[in-house]
Amino acid sequence: MSEVAGRLSVQEGAFYLGRARGGRGILLSGVPGVPPGNVVILGAGTAGLNAARAAVGLGADVSILDVNLDRLRHVDDLFRGQVVTVVSNSFNVEQVLRRADLLIGAVLVAGARAPRLVTKEMVTTMKEGGVIVDISVDQGGCVETIRPTTLLDPVYVVSSVVHYGVANMPALVPRTSTFALTNATLPYAMELATHGVADAVRANPALAKGVNIWRGRVVHPAVAEALGEKPTPLDACLR
Amino acid sequence: MSEVAGRLSVQEGAFYLGRARGGRGILLSGVPGVPPGNVVILGAGTAGLNAARAAVGLGADVSILDVNLDRLRHVDDLFRGQVVTVVSNSFNVEQVLRRADLLIGAVLVAGARAPRLVTKEMVTTMKEGGVIVDISVDQGGCVETIRPTTLLDPVYVVSSVVHYGVANMPALVPRTSTFALTNATLPYAMELATHGVADAVRANPALAKGVNIWRGRVVHPAVAEALGEKPTPLDACLR
Amino acid sequence: MSEVAGRLSVQEGAFYLGRARGGRGILLSGVPGVPPGNVVILGAGTAGLNAARAAVGLGADVSILDVNLDRLRHVDDLFRGQVVTVVSNSFNVEQVLRRADLLIGAVLVAGARAPRLVTKEMVTTMKEGGVIVDISVDQGGCVETIRPTTLLDPVYVVSSVVHYGVANMPALVPRTSTFALTNATLPYAMELATHGVADAVRANPALAKGVNIWRGRVVHPAVAEALGEKPTPLDACLR
Amino acid sequence: MSEVAGRLSVQEGAFYLGRARGGRGILLSGVPGVPPGNVVILGAGTAGLNAARAAVGLGADVSILDVNLDRLRHVDDLFRGQVVTVVSNSFNVEQVLRRADLLIGAVLVAGARAPRLVTKEMVTTMKEGGVIVDISVDQGGCVETIRPTTLLDPVYVVSSVVHYGVANMPALVPRTSTFALTNATLPYAMELATHGVADAVRANPALAKGVNIWRGRVVHPAVAEALGEKPTPLDACLR
Amino acid sequence: MSEVAGRLSVQEGAFYLGRARGGRGILLSGVPGVPPGNVVILGAGTAGLNAARAAVGLGADVSILDVNLDRLRHVDDLFRGQVVTVVSNSFNVEQVLRRADLLIGAVLVAGARAPRLVTKEMVTTMKEGGVIVDISVDQGGCVETIRPTTLLDPVYVVSSVVHYGVANMPALVPRTSTFALTNATLPYAMELATHGVADAVRANPALAKGVNIWRGRVVHPAVAEALGEKPTPLDACLR
Amino acid sequence: MSEVAGRLSVQEGAFYLGRARGGRGILLSGVPGVPPGNVVILGAGTAGLNAARAAVGLGADVSILDVNLDRLRHVDDLFRGQVVTVVSNSFNVEQVLRRADLLIGAVLVAGARAPRLVTKEMVTTMKEGGVIVDISVDQGGCVETIRPTTLLDPVYVVSSVVHYGVANMPALVPRTSTFALTNATLPYAMELATHGVADAVRANPALAKGVNIWRGRVVHPAVAEALGEKPTPLDACLR
Repeated sequence: MSEVAGRLSVQEGAFYLGRARGGRGILLSGVPGVPPGNVVILGAGTAGLNAARAAVGLGADVSILDVNLDRLRHVDDLFRGQVVTVVSNSFNVEQVLRRADLLIGAVLVAGARAPRLVTKEMVTTMKEGGVIVDISVDQGGCVETIRPTTLLDPVYVVSSVVHYGVANMPALVPRTSTFALTNATLPYAMELATHGVADAVRANPALAKGVNIWRGRVVHPAVAEALGEKPTPLDACLR
Repeated sequence: MSEVAGRLSVQEGAFYLGRARGGRGILLSGVPGVPPGNVVILGAGTAGLNAARAAVGLGADVSILDVNLDRLRHVDDLFRGQVVTVVSNSFNVEQVLRRADLLIGAVLVAGARAPRLVTKEMVTTMKEGGVIVDISVDQGGCVETIRPTTLLDPVYVVSSVVHYGVANMPALVPRTSTFALTNATLPYAMELATHGVADAVRANPALAKGVNIWRGRVVHPAVAEALGEKPTPLDACLR
Repeated sequence: MSEVAGRLSVQEGAFYLGRARGGRGILLSGVPGVPPGNVVILGAGTAGLNAARAAVGLGADVSILDVNLDRLRHVDDLFRGQVVTVVSNSFNVEQVLRRADLLIGAVLVAGARAPRLVTKEMVTTMKEGGVIVDISVDQGGCVETIRPTTLLDPVYVVSSVVHYGVANMPALVPRTSTFALTNATLPYAMELATHGVADAVRANPALAKGVNIWRGRVVHPAVAEALGEKPTPLDACLR
Repeated sequence: MSEVAGRLSVQEGAFYLGRARGGRGILLSGVPGVPPGNVVILGAGTAGLNAARAAVGLGADVSILDVNLDRLRHVDDLFRGQVVTVVSNSFNVEQVLRRADLLIGAVLVAGARAPRLVTKEMVTTMKEGGVIVDISVDQGGCVETIRPTTLLDPVYVVSSVVHYGVANMPALVPRTSTFALTNATLPYAMELATHGVADAVRANPALAKGVNIWRGRVVHPAVAEALGEKPTPLDACLR
Repeated sequence: MSEVAGRLSVQEGAFYLGRARGGRGILLSGVPGVPPGNVVILGAGTAGLNAARAAVGLGADVSILDVNLDRLRHVDDLFRGQVVTVVSNSFNVEQVLRRADLLIGAVLVAGARAPRLVTKEMVTTMKEGGVIVDISVDQGGCVETIRPTTLLDPVYVVSSVVHYGVANMPALVPRTSTFALTNATLPYAMELATHGVADAVRANPALAKGVNIWRGRVVHPAVAEALGEKPTPLDACLR
Repeated sequence: MSEVAGRLSVQEGAFYLGRARGGRGILLSGVPGVPPGNVVILGAGTAGLNAARAAVGLGADVSILDVNLDRLRHVDDLFRGQVVTVVSNSFNVEQVLRRADLLIGAVLVAGARAPRLVTKEMVTTMKEGGVIVDISVDQGGCVETIRPTTLLDPVYVVSSVVHYGVANMPALVPRTSTFALTNATLPYAMELATHGVADAVRANPALAKGVNIWRGRVVHPAVAEALGEKPTPLDACLR
């Protein structure tokens, strides 16, 4: 789903850069004689990489930030100079933000709150009519001023900057998302249907990781912790 | 302005392919494992070429149609196989339309009504939730069912197909458009300011073509015809 | 050798698409105004990836199928939208087959029979004059109707579809293949020559894996199994 | 048709480089660790450019020669360093020939005999098992040793070099060629059908150029010359 | 020669950006995590286009300025978003200059003094250690502070900016330049040798344009003007 | 730093190919009608890959050699045919050297002497005026005739070949190098500052590896060995 969200984020952001929708009124690609718009992407994971691809594809001037140098090297290998890679730290984030027409928040940390990289004050330094699309909004967002919105009322304005906080972007393109999800989950469903739940879970550790409750006993550590219980080891159940 | 409209048309169309906006609910680029959406562009002039660039950039499967084989060869040279070129005739238009998720009308004929290439019946053969963006709407449109709309209320649905008929798309990105327009017109303004109107018009045939009335006399043939008068030759005025 | 076979498969297939050779009589790249031919590649391993590169290079419309989503993501990163990636399942195989002009079977499973993805019935749904090149023919083929052929008599026709079943394609380009093979094997030969067989095998596990018999004793598990014997552990021999 | 022939020439040549067909036994693209084959294209017109595209697409090391520097600049702009451009003169032709695995003759001069750039002696300096495909064979060929062959018996060997002299290559891919031809000629047919022959010829100088005989009088200068007559001016006939 | 000078200008400039040579001490391409350097090219003619290619090739962030929008469109078509195109006027030149690490002057006007686009004051706004390479120095230069230098002593510093004013850059790469020049002039030499001077000049207007004096009479208008004479028409001489 | 050195090596080498600096006097990219120069890169590690990118970017004809086939496959995937990959052995090194205009030595083996791939005799077979840039000079160099030089006096000539042996190339571009180095080391400094040395070293094995001496005791095995001591295990110190 990160792939869907990453690619969507740029075209949604491009749309809200339109003047009639509250944005700066610029075309990301520019035209011959008029420079392109500037897109800043926070995070070079799957979502960020896919956002970069869409932004480069539209002809924007693209920078991507990450704390992980190896991710940046990978970006540099794939895009051979079409994307500027910047090490993510508060100084650099501040610098690139001043020039950004579109900011994509793509800092997704598995199972954790997204780190807050962009403060309220930093948002005020952005250009008037700039747009922020924060893909990590459902993990709390990496921009202080972002809050979840819905597809029917997707944007609001803070400090003259358009904020797009749709929490479940892939729902916008259900045909694509459903196929993508099915592609990822069908193999598991096939194993469950072929071998039965117990054998399938025994055979495939990836399936085992997804079990929350087994015959009434809480087996998933995180679920158990949330309920204030001690988890029963799944291995014990399956024996 | 054709450059601005061409590039905008694809990102506007991509937006309305979203399910929440009445479209098919697909992502033009697809994702790994899910095929991309199909974009059909009618017309390989400046607007069409710029639309093709944006569509290829977003990762769509793109076909472009034109009656002029040399234009198609030029497209083929520039995109080296990333865009399918098809000769435009009613048979081919019908064929490609059935597969189109997004149809871009970009058939602009200087100073004339756009030819009507897509009939009402053909629109009914398009996929449900497909989107039509007709850049040529202010010349009457190349799609029979298109009619002018505004930026505040840009779309309507006919035969389950979303129609986008904004007549003045560049107004959506006034910063980009104003610079683009200034780039194109400033040299003329400079000549007028430097040499005075009469001398400037004498020296530059391109300026002369733009004169409608000279000291009370109608000099532009088309304007004269529209008024039922005979035009005074500009040369006679300038002597 | 998978690299050689993958790249060869497309140019061999392109050749047999010629009308005089029983094929559909189409040019894979198309020309401006005439759409390109459609190439379907089953398997996104080394052979499939190399086939994709050749097919994209010739300007064809290319789809690649694999059960492994990570392989498809890798393809998508490398080709950035020039190759359509499709998850491999019987439904999708059926769909893509109907549009295929050239089908490349590149489903190679190390040391195992290739899975039969394309049935006899599915072959009958292909276009008349389509071509099948099955690289996996020496592992039984992933197309039901394929059978091994020779370089001197490489093709036969079933259900109006040209079948190319050359089992040892790299033999067609011995200069390239010999260098490629030497490149891969020379380092082993050097180790054997420098250190003697016993020491070289002791030092390099990759060499050890290739030993079938050691001083009269069968040490390779698979060979032993085929002979109905119990293998002697190589370690015991080398001590 | 030059586009079809240009693109076909490379895949036909690649096929005959196969050892089993008398060629050198190399794969044009090479593989990692083994250098690619060398393709030399004589002539940077439409046919040559299309051959270059196919050869670059297959991963070969490609050089193109032409007497016209502007054509070479165009090639260089389009391929940005992927094709080596060389000014055509006998010294340079001799040099590049020694390294060529595949030689494409694409020197087409409208309505004239192709210039003989490669002599019998020069062919003897080519590598053993090299391949020559001369697209200009129906204009006499630009290689001294080439003679017309047929699709059923396309090649013969001179000085250990495989010669491919199929005079009408596009006949190999009739589906593609027919559409291409129709695309180019249909507009003329439409004019003739709509306006009648006389009016259509009057209105369109391109049609007029194609008239050989008008109501019994020879009007085409070249035809008249061939018959030893004086042509009647077409204008006189049409009045 | 503009092609040679354009391509050389970037690699010469990159060299002098080295700290040990007085430059800013930056690598034009940057590395992953460090943004690339900024190259500004004045003029999108042959020299400017070739400079852009080299600068993009090295991975720099490249802007090109020209007064001619059609040239900028051509750049945009060729580089598809890899080069920022900017309309040249004093406001824009000032803006881009502040960000430039390397400025390439490539404003060549045939047979005229290069327009002075960059004033002394503007040079002082450049970054310390920036580099200026002015290809148009032998036409007076488009930068006010440039003056001709030699290959043995190519640079000097003004306002902390390194100036490179080698007037005859192609002399640095005589092998390449000699072949390039021969390629361009050999056809004329062949005509003169084959037909004799008088006939060759009669037959080829391009040769005729190059004649300065004919049998003692000054025939070239510019030469005559420089000598205060009236030119004898060449036609009269040749009759 | 390998990235900086790799990219710099090509532009430094290109500079010294200039005639006025003792080189062959060729432009690496060639121009339309004149073939490009040939660059040979020994080693397909980080430095070699970055050198290849710069050389391809400048338009040269590039070959890269490595003993590791997987590295060559990676190069081939990234450059898709724009770089010739060759397996490194003495025969192949000899072959490619004869054609090289610029030789980049990029064989860096972590913590070891660079293998001597190019002998004195092989250097004499290079073209007159060729250039050698050996990035591995501070590890002894992979070319027998290379010796360390300084940025102020970077080159010398042996057997008519220009040798560039600057040991610390990144010092030439201190702005870029400092940022690159800071990017790589800042995270460690942050950990040390936040947690104190002992806790930071305990928590992060990467830091632990860098400790040479702990409170007077030599803990690094290599340092201890050099001093003829026995190292104290760091774990013991930290407890």
